[in-house]
Amino acid sequence: MTQMRKKTRLEHDLIGDMPIPLSAYYGIHSLRAVENFPITGTTIARSPDLIIALAAIKEAAAQANFELGRLDGDRCAAIVAACHEIRAGALHDQFIVDPIQGGAGTSTNMNANEVIANRALELLGFERGTYAELHPNEHVNCGQSTNDVYPTALKLAALSAIKRLLSAMAILRSAFADKADEFADILKMGRTQLQDAVPMTLGQEFGTYALMLAEDEARLAEASLLIKEINLGGTAIGTGITSHPRYAALVRERLSNIVGEDLITAPNLIEATQDCGAFVQLSGVLKRIAVKLSKVCNDLRLLSSGPRSGFNEINLPPRQAGSSIMPGKVNPVIPEVVNQVAFEVIGNDITITMAAEAGQLQLNAFEPIIFHSLERSLSHLTAACLTLERNCVRGITANREPLRAQVERSIGIVTALNPYIGYQFATEVAVEAHSSGQGVYDIILSRGLMTREHLDTVLQPDLLARPLEILELQVPHGHPPA
Amino acid sequence: MTQMRKKTRLEHDLIGDMPIPLSAYYGIHSLRAVENFPITGTTIARSPDLIIALAAIKEAAAQANFELGRLDGDRCAAIVAACHEIRAGALHDQFIVDPIQGGAGTSTNMNANEVIANRALELLGFERGTYAELHPNEHVNCGQSTNDVYPTALKLAALSAIKRLLSAMAILRSAFADKADEFADILKMGRTQLQDAVPMTLGQEFGTYALMLAEDEARLAEASLLIKEINLGGTAIGTGITSHPRYAALVRERLSNIVGEDLITAPNLIEATQDCGAFVQLSGVLKRIAVKLSKVCNDLRLLSSGPRSGFNEINLPPRQAGSSIMPGKVNPVIPEVVNQVAFEVIGNDITITMAAEAGQLQLNAFEPIIFHSLERSLSHLTAACLTLERNCVRGITANREPLRAQVERSIGIVTALNPYIGYQFATEVAVEAHSSGQGVYDIILSRGLMTREHLDTVLQPDLLARPLEILELQVPHGHPPA
Amino acid sequence: MTQMRKKTRLEHDLIGDMPIPLSAYYGIHSLRAVENFPITGTTIARSPDLIIALAAIKEAAAQANFELGRLDGDRCAAIVAACHEIRAGALHDQFIVDPIQGGAGTSTNMNANEVIANRALELLGFERGTYAELHPNEHVNCGQSTNDVYPTALKLAALSAIKRLLSAMAILRSAFADKADEFADILKMGRTQLQDAVPMTLGQEFGTYALMLAEDEARLAEASLLIKEINLGGTAIGTGITSHPRYAALVRERLSNIVGEDLITAPNLIEATQDCGAFVQLSGVLKRIAVKLSKVCNDLRLLSSGPRSGFNEINLPPRQAGSSIMPGKVNPVIPEVVNQVAFEVIGNDITITMAAEAGQLQLNAFEPIIFHSLERSLSHLTAACLTLERNCVRGITANREPLRAQVERSIGIVTALNPYIGYQFATEVAVEAHSSGQGVYDIILSRGLMTREHLDTVLQPDLLARPLEILELQVPHGHPPA
Amino acid sequence: MTQMRKKTRLEHDLIGDMPIPLSAYYGIHSLRAVENFPITGTTIARSPDLIIALAAIKEAAAQANFELGRLDGDRCAAIVAACHEIRAGALHDQFIVDPIQGGAGTSTNMNANEVIANRALELLGFERGTYAELHPNEHVNCGQSTNDVYPTALKLAALSAIKRLLSAMAILRSAFADKADEFADILKMGRTQLQDAVPMTLGQEFGTYALMLAEDEARLAEASLLIKEINLGGTAIGTGITSHPRYAALVRERLSNIVGEDLITAPNLIEATQDCGAFVQLSGVLKRIAVKLSKVCNDLRLLSSGPRSGFNEINLPPRQAGSSIMPGKVNPVIPEVVNQVAFEVIGNDITITMAAEAGQLQLNAFEPIIFHSLERSLSHLTAACLTLERNCVRGITANREPLRAQVERSIGIVTALNPYIGYQFATEVAVEAHSSGQGVYDIILSRGLMTREHLDTVLQPDLLARPLEILELQVPHGHPPA
Repeated sequence: MTQMRKKTRLEHDLIGDMPIPLSAYYGIHSLRAVENFPITGTTIARSPDLIIALAAIKEAAAQANFELGRLDGDRCAAIVAACHEIRAGALHDQFIVDPIQGGAGTSTNMNANEVIANRALELLGFERGTYAELHPNEHVNCGQSTNDVYPTALKLAALSAIKRLLSAMAILRSAFADKADEFADILKMGRTQLQDAVPMTLGQEFGTYALMLAEDEARLAEASLLIKEINLGGTAIGTGITSHPRYAALVRERLSNIVGEDLITAPNLIEATQDCGAFVQLSGVLKRIAVKLSKVCNDLRLLSSGPRSGFNEINLPPRQAGSSIMPGKVNPVIPEVVNQVAFEVIGNDITITMAAEAGQLQLNAFEPIIFHSLERSLSHLTAACLTLERNCVRGITANREPLRAQVERSIGIVTALNPYIGYQFATEVAVEAHSSGQGVYDIILSRGLMTREHLDTVLQPDLLARPLEILELQVPHGHPPA
Repeated sequence: MTQMRKKTRLEHDLIGDMPIPLSAYYGIHSLRAVENFPITGTTIARSPDLIIALAAIKEAAAQANFELGRLDGDRCAAIVAACHEIRAGALHDQFIVDPIQGGAGTSTNMNANEVIANRALELLGFERGTYAELHPNEHVNCGQSTNDVYPTALKLAALSAIKRLLSAMAILRSAFADKADEFADILKMGRTQLQDAVPMTLGQEFGTYALMLAEDEARLAEASLLIKEINLGGTAIGTGITSHPRYAALVRERLSNIVGEDLITAPNLIEATQDCGAFVQLSGVLKRIAVKLSKVCNDLRLLSSGPRSGFNEINLPPRQAGSSIMPGKVNPVIPEVVNQVAFEVIGNDITITMAAEAGQLQLNAFEPIIFHSLERSLSHLTAACLTLERNCVRGITANREPLRAQVERSIGIVTALNPYIGYQFATEVAVEAHSSGQGVYDIILSRGLMTREHLDTVLQPDLLARPLEILELQVPHGHPPA
Repeated sequence: MTQMRKKTRLEHDLIGDMPIPLSAYYGIHSLRAVENFPITGTTIARSPDLIIALAAIKEAAAQANFELGRLDGDRCAAIVAACHEIRAGALHDQFIVDPIQGGAGTSTNMNANEVIANRALELLGFERGTYAELHPNEHVNCGQSTNDVYPTALKLAALSAIKRLLSAMAILRSAFADKADEFADILKMGRTQLQDAVPMTLGQEFGTYALMLAEDEARLAEASLLIKEINLGGTAIGTGITSHPRYAALVRERLSNIVGEDLITAPNLIEATQDCGAFVQLSGVLKRIAVKLSKVCNDLRLLSSGPRSGFNEINLPPRQAGSSIMPGKVNPVIPEVVNQVAFEVIGNDITITMAAEAGQLQLNAFEPIIFHSLERSLSHLTAACLTLERNCVRGITANREPLRAQVERSIGIVTALNPYIGYQFATEVAVEAHSSGQGVYDIILSRGLMTREHLDTVLQPDLLARPLEILELQVPHGHPPA
Repeated sequence: MTQMRKKTRLEHDLIGDMPIPLSAYYGIHSLRAVENFPITGTTIARSPDLIIALAAIKEAAAQANFELGRLDGDRCAAIVAACHEIRAGALHDQFIVDPIQGGAGTSTNMNANEVIANRALELLGFERGTYAELHPNEHVNCGQSTNDVYPTALKLAALSAIKRLLSAMAILRSAFADKADEFADILKMGRTQLQDAVPMTLGQEFGTYALMLAEDEARLAEASLLIKEINLGGTAIGTGITSHPRYAALVRERLSNIVGEDLITAPNLIEATQDCGAFVQLSGVLKRIAVKLSKVCNDLRLLSSGPRSGFNEINLPPRQAGSSIMPGKVNPVIPEVVNQVAFEVIGNDITITMAAEAGQLQLNAFEPIIFHSLERSLSHLTAACLTLERNCVRGITANREPLRAQVERSIGIVTALNPYIGYQFATEVAVEAHSSGQGVYDIILSRGLMTREHLDTVLQPDLLARPLEILELQVPHGHPPA
């Protein structure tokens, strides 16, 4: 018992007493949460962005409270110092609560308050747990509520993750753009509905992928503006109860300086406290990115299908043996993993949607799962873009000659003759080409529909991938020869 | 005013009076709903299954109440006669409420009560609206509540739709099975991850589709058992308030006779009244069917890609000109429409899931959208199966010779040599085949890895699509011939 | 036979001949589609926005082609005149194809081409079906492809629907704002996690709903910008094959004039032809609106729960009898129908997401289901906003006195004392209040924690819903009065 | 360099050479995967079920191959011994590949082959990496393919997790059943659509929750049958290439013995190899469980809302301080965390659905994300059930007296009078009660609608929660006392 007392300290909450390991920086509220939420087997220590964001907020709050006379200088300095350490990477292992937790993030906020308070106590020369000197809720959490601290922390953490994703998208986009240049003069058949359509270049195809990413980057940047709007100062439900009237502006200013972002205080803190719209919008954009990335990877897998019984237009760089049984098989494993991340992001969007919809009255209690899902969407998409760039797109090569041959023996080039022989005649030519196996060129000539010179001009392969140059129409539409 | 009075009758509810067209069989409650829910621009008249189910329930209830002394013979007879007419198709245009409605289906039930009451009044020789003689709520709805009538009606309607879907699935399955027979001896390359794998027959491929459907039919039949469990007799919240203790059993018996189904009264009517689990399960199975159908259609589109720059293994029957600009283009339009129905069904499943989750306490108020979504899933899947069978699968043809040639020049057949030359050597052969363009057969011979006789035996094309017959191993694994 | 010949005309496509009713303006391609896609039992005639958009595009294309010398004046005039009629509402019943269709919208485009061609023929004095004079594909569809016409039409139709939704949202927002004013001085308890929290005003609560809508209107306006970007001129796959180099700019100009929108030609038509990102983004925003509307309706249902065993804070206007069995029951039927629309919109978003993801290579073949889903999301949300405003929000009343009494007997007001007695002491007070049933005020006084004067100042009800005015702190934090 | 050589061994694959740490049991294929798939920051070592399942399969395969003469006794014994160790928990840290991976699970299977081979080599007295003696692919993977091993392993792992979930559900169900007994005689108002409806007991309410769980347990058991069907023996695409004709049956027998399950070999291995239907079905059932659990938790949160401005019917046991700012606040944190797990499971179902739909031709390449999602759904649901039972349901208490008082002053009891005074009169009574605040009992008496004796009989509170006992009807329906 004496032995036991030496290794633990007793802490107290409204439920009762609880022994806490003497060495622990966390306290009773954190430990209650560990008992209550044994869901994932992991802790928020796996979310350094979140922990750093919490420390930044607590630091800003301490500064603001000091300026407003709500916190004395010594305690302020100790809290700020503790936050510095945490922002630099210290004590993250003391963040022990599960990322999936009830209580609208209270346990995460309490965990931060406790760790910071105990570290600050230590810096002030007191023992951990002597909260009469510096209290997690009264001093570290002064003028704050989980309900403004936690969503603000989620937003700061999301902003960091968004930046990394934007950077990864730019890297991937650049790889596609480089391939677009490299493949600019490789003619190939475009396909609609998986059926041969009309010619284009492989460069045009890859240029499309680059542009899709660019557009998604723009959408993500747009959505991130909403994320910069915070509700710090709203306290419990946005009315600002217990906070100083000047606190909201002041803490936003301090926090903006600390994190280097132009944060905005929401114009209506009551609305901002209960609304998860910014997260829904962000997740919607991540879903859009996932949709596009998945589409691109589907295309890459199709275009590289083969090697002998497929489209075989491009070659993805081999990255690993593809089969434990089929020797020499190489699979499009990088696009495949990106597809899977995309499916996960789309599933996460439903989770986020439902959690947002389920918010009631003055608060959304389900922000923890919203953040947990968003965080994985953001980080997995980032990883997916980077491995796609490095391990796949950069090494793609094209099968130039077969691609050009495809165009030459295609039926689809008959489309280019529409303006000269009309849709109806062209249809007959196409049907004959398909059934006989003959080329369009030969059929046109043998039917005497166009002269060889004219045909050679119109069917110049390199003109087929652009709007039609103006040529003299040989026959009026709808009035075919004979 | 006099003129006006002639064309309308006044009805009354707790909100006040309302003029109802004299010719109308519906009444004030229906008309209130029309004002309140102008959502889709359609009415439940588009759901004859539902209207017929409601009439069947009202008929069964009238019979049961008569037997229990709760309803006199004249009124009972009139109600039963009105229900007969409706079940035969009459008066459906009097069902005027929107399928998407608040009120947990009350408006639908009220609409049925009113139409039946007014038709029964007419049959009894009274004017429509003289509810003192026969009242929608007191007589037609006697011993009932929307909360047991409506979900029971939804289940009966769903059962009808499930039967049609099962029949359509069986028709489609039979088409796939016939193609499996027709293509039984067409050898082709199987593919994993869109890369050439090992040989199989096209018959095996189509047999797979038939079996997938068979398994889904079994799941659907399983789920339909849950749908046969009804909560009639539970009245408002399942406690059976206002109903006779023998009523639940009696009405179930009468209703089973009327609809020709072995219905089951749920063992716990309170649970049954608030639980939408049977619909969630049914929708989950429909989603599974959608997933499989979509996968099959993706395959059909892939296998028929071309005609010159694709897999070109099979030919879907041309069903319409594929393009307004590209002459002669034919697209896989039937599989494409099936894919889209599948996407719709999967979206509907989310709608149903959210509506089920949002049920509170003793009732799920969101059954109307659950049924509306289920109904579309069921009917669109039925239509999709039928058009896929009739307009696509039945007409599929195979490109036999190119398929066999693919196998012969494939690299994947090297897999069959694993037991003889080992994975590692086989990998070297495959890599050489890929880079040189040579055939596996020739490389093996030129390297002296196996004798021609042995190779001819092992690589007999028609043996490649089965487990390996026992052959004498030439070399121990891992100890390749020096 | 003769009789038969008189009633039909024969039309021809690549599959063969087909009799078409003489009276029909549609032609063979439309009728093929009707046979192929019997999915929903409805037709695109239920989408007047879409039909009008198609006519606008065909008109603009005819004008542009005339200017570029691709279409002669007579045919151009006839096509333009036919389009005028259709835009004015004529001939919509001739649009007979199912909204859920394979073929990437080809059938819809073909249906438009045929109806316009036949009406134009009529105007020129020819019989319907005499396509040698004016051909659906060669003249009406001149320089176009389904692949640029159809997505452009979808966007124009979506723009019309977005405008209606924006207008409905503004109307609803205004109702909430009016209620916020009306309820500005009604004090009530705010709740977090369904537990009593701290005071606020009912006006603040309704003001929140107004602001949520305003923010969503901003997001919707933002998303609609993407919808203004069209790919007309890209023809089959975006390379512009068969179109005149100046066509894209010219047709965009003409079309902008016709529809009164500043349309933008996408900078990369290949990307624009295959990308459904704008629809995904739009649907994501609609989902966000749905999430918010559903949350608000959940709140309205909670706050009006009762009348005797619920929150009973506000009264929704009774709109219809709530039960066929429970006399006098009134239910929140309007919020309930809005919830259901929200669930539908969220399900539609998944449908759209999957359809967008499934697009392959140069075209997304699944645009029909994307539009079909979007259209329902847009129109149902519009209807939901309007019925919520008119039939619910406008008539909401508040139970002012009970609400104020709640605040006075609440425990949550102890939060306001944090700065004076500290979190720890305040917790003890709260626990005592909860277990004893006493009021916070009395406990504070009986414990001598604060003077009555001070307490009266701090707990002035009307100060509780704002940030704390600066008051002299009585005790330092963490050092409670011995 | 020499130093370097000492610490690593060189391994080789079709891409080239790669140094592997000498101490590693994994090999080149595992390390390639680590480079290719740096997605989640975790490894499959977090899935002991999966690793144990892989070892069980490899052990069974070795036994079967030995019996069929495909593997010699020494190698077989070594492989079996290595698998024993892994099944007992050894070497799990050598499973280094990311759970989200491309390649259809090949990397996971290769990782297992390598770890087992190297440990077997060690046991045979060879150095790790001397694959000429015992080869990961030729011996450990003998007669196998990732495409049969991996899905079989996923199913075995899922079966273990399903058992744990079933056990947790039973524990939770039992807690609800105990509460149903405890609360059997507590009368309360039932609610539909959040409006007061008719009386029931709190025991009935909790009994419903128990039954919902029981039904879901039945569905889960049903779905788990599908999971017992394996495709082992199908090898690459289900044709069984390289496997012995008797192998499939033999390995299934061995594996069944090892894992203690009656496994079934799928009747069609080609279908079984490409089909993910069993996972889709399982996930669908998990979604159903999530829907129900979430509904129950929504109810618990509603019923315990308050403490002063809510329903306040039941009290959840306090588990932690609910707020960092609001002293004494206690929140329903346990139901809240269960809600969030439910949202996650529903999102996972979409991920699984999309991954299943995206499978192409002979294999679904996206099984890794399917399993990763399923695994989290299963384990989080298990954790959610257990914390809900232990930390919430067991400690729930009821506010008996206020609940009974609610019934007595309710308007809803008028429903019980329907059979005596009719719906229309009862409506008038209810409306008067609502507007005047009077009790139903007094109004009935003062209007002389029923005698006091009759009223006392009919409104006996304890009779209100059951079907109506037969009483003499006082007035005929529809003919109220003048």
